[in-house]
Amino acid sequence: MASDIVNIQSALESISEFWQPHRLASINDYDVKVVKLKGEFVWHSHPETDELFLVLSGELTIQLRDRDVLLLPNDIFVVPRGVEHCPLAIAEVSAILIEPKGTVNTGDVGGERTSELRELAD
Amino acid sequence: MASDIVNIQSALESISEFWQPHRLASINDYDVKVVKLKGEFVWHSHPETDELFLVLSGELTIQLRDRDVLLLPNDIFVVPRGVEHCPLAIAEVSAILIEPKGTVNTGDVGGERTSELRELAD
Repeated sequence: MASDIVNIQSALESISEFWQPHRLASINDYDVKVVKLKGEFVWHSHPETDELFLVLSGELTIQLRDRDVLLLPNDIFVVPRGVEHCPLAIAEVSAILIEPKGTVNTGDVGGERTSELRELAD
Repeated sequence: MASDIVNIQSALESISEFWQPHRLASINDYDVKVVKLKGEFVWHSHPETDELFLVLSGELTIQLRDRDVLLLPNDIFVVPRGVEHCPLAIAEVSAILIEPKGTVNTGDVGGERTSELRELAD
């Protein structure tokens, strides 16, 4: 019941590392996360869940095996469950991710790019 | 698999009515909706789910029984399940809502302000 207001811009200002999702809020068993992205991630999929990207700033390419999806600010794209994808941010991007609690950023591949979900600093 | 890009601003420009949530995207069994708000809604709660508000523009007051929560652009607030609330927009507000599919805007009270979830025009 201690729900309170979270401001997305303030959250972004508190984040210094790339590819480290931070929790903005939770709705039931889903998390809404904010993340800064720069460079290329790793190819992976989430066999058990869809994953929603909402670009706040910058230009994000979601590389799919058969096409590239270029997302500009205010664009939303859902990677369907099981679909291999690899995010690519030539310059810095900030984005919101929505997915079930426990969804790991590297999906089915794991490895050194895996990041625990971070909490925003108070 | 026909997932494609949805732009929030384009979606907003296609909406003329207030209090009519339109689906932007779905993730598994959740919907991400966009809505324009103006005036006061009705007091209601959602006994079975939390409800997330993300304000895109304008100033939205979420009236709770024990306090008012004032949301500015880029603010996120989650109304916990079962908590009575009544949104109030003195001037026009645009906002994103996230909640499970089938969640009705008027929650447990129903009535004439109930709106079916709308789809964006192609």
